[in-house]
Amino acid sequence: MTIEWPAITHITKIDPAKPLPADLGVLEHTDLVIVGGSDDVTEENALTTIQEVVDSVPEIPVLQEPYSSQHVSVETIAAVDQLFVPAIYNGDQTHFVGKHLQMFTQLSSDFEGLLGQSGSMASIAEKICAVGYVIQNTDSRAASTAGVTESLSLDEVRGAALATEVFYDFPLFYVEYSGQFGGTTAVNAAATVLGETRLLYGGGIDSGQKANAVLSAGADAIVVGDCFHEDRDAYRQTTRVDH
Amino acid sequence: MTIEWPAITHITKIDPAKPLPADLGVLEHTDLVIVGGSDDVTEENALTTIQEVVDSVPEIPVLQEPYSSQHVSVETIAAVDQLFVPAIYNGDQTHFVGKHLQMFTQLSSDFEGLLGQSGSMASIAEKICAVGYVIQNTDSRAASTAGVTESLSLDEVRGAALATEVFYDFPLFYVEYSGQFGGTTAVNAAATVLGETRLLYGGGIDSGQKANAVLSAGADAIVVGDCFHEDRDAYRQTTRVDH
Repeated sequence: MTIEWPAITHITKIDPAKPLPADLGVLEHTDLVIVGGSDDVTEENALTTIQEVVDSVPEIPVLQEPYSSQHVSVETIAAVDQLFVPAIYNGDQTHFVGKHLQMFTQLSSDFEGLLGQSGSMASIAEKICAVGYVIQNTDSRAASTAGVTESLSLDEVRGAALATEVFYDFPLFYVEYSGQFGGTTAVNAAATVLGETRLLYGGGIDSGQKANAVLSAGADAIVVGDCFHEDRDAYRQTTRVDH
Repeated sequence: MTIEWPAITHITKIDPAKPLPADLGVLEHTDLVIVGGSDDVTEENALTTIQEVVDSVPEIPVLQEPYSSQHVSVETIAAVDQLFVPAIYNGDQTHFVGKHLQMFTQLSSDFEGLLGQSGSMASIAEKICAVGYVIQNTDSRAASTAGVTESLSLDEVRGAALATEVFYDFPLFYVEYSGQFGGTTAVNAAATVLGETRLLYGGGIDSGQKANAVLSAGADAIVVGDCFHEDRDAYRQTTRVDH
């Protein structure tokens, strides 16, 4: 399905290595699902999670965020609407360009092997969602995986947002606090320079109040992860925000 | 002026630190001029060169390729149609993302100071020409400046071209052999995966035959540098190619 980003304000991030809630029907209240994680994720548990989500809420778009090419297969690519592929401004070279160069080298050598019989250059473009990304919690697992040693200043967050908008031309810019609530200042800084690019915020959102604060500061969508797995009531609160 | 890339097949690269030919009227035979270089380039000689070109051939678009922020000023930006800004796939981190993050951080902090009274986000987007770039001659000055230690394999050139087309979404992809003629294989590899992205080739073109070979292999435009400064007859031959 085509993803209508302007209509998406609430995103649920599901870690395939964590247990799923008994009733996935709660996902009816989110606008989009991203399946991805680092520790203990495999192609098998990623595919199982994707399929359970698609079976439970077939009308909700599902993206896979692969942390490694090992998590991706012809089956996972076929099962999701898009691959969610971050380019991390404050990561190491591998995480802004190196792994992408490797991925597109593989793809360009073997469209059909990786995308099935419909494999073509146009189908790759449709399957990829490019995301300009900053990781602001340097103590997080996401930071250590991506080689992030320093968070960006507010001026640099604004610069990265502007580079996303006018230079790299990614459709999304993501401010990630990964596991802790980062407040609204970075979102606010990025929002001042973004036009067409959609602004996502993730990190520590576990209440309607925090969800509302970040959206009011200029985020187009919030990403809610931990409390989906851990606290159903808190998760439901994050979905009950009017925009 | 708006740059009509599909009409551009011949580009002249002028080094502001080298003497200009006595008669700049020869530039009537090129489609676009890029002013830039590394050694001994200053904001002053860049601006002087830009102004001499604009005065001699006002109908030809002129871009500045700054190797350092020291080469750019409000005056140079105002004098050119666009800034030509490479992101070098096989360069060090600074040359794919670091210097861009720095540049857009400065720009986002001070639109007006850098772009004059018309400074705005929209005017930045219009002034920037983003270029996905690979440097294939590792012995060149360009390679050592950009931290390039290895050229890309043909598979990787094709992967970088595909990443340019569908991920980073740069309007141009540039195969640079910097000072030596690289033949047609890399151009051919890149051309197989490019759709909207324009393919540029630069390096060692000093005859109509070489110009023709590269264009026939799939380049949309050739970039001619050294022989503009050194050999007027050879330069004229490179402009006499029918497409």
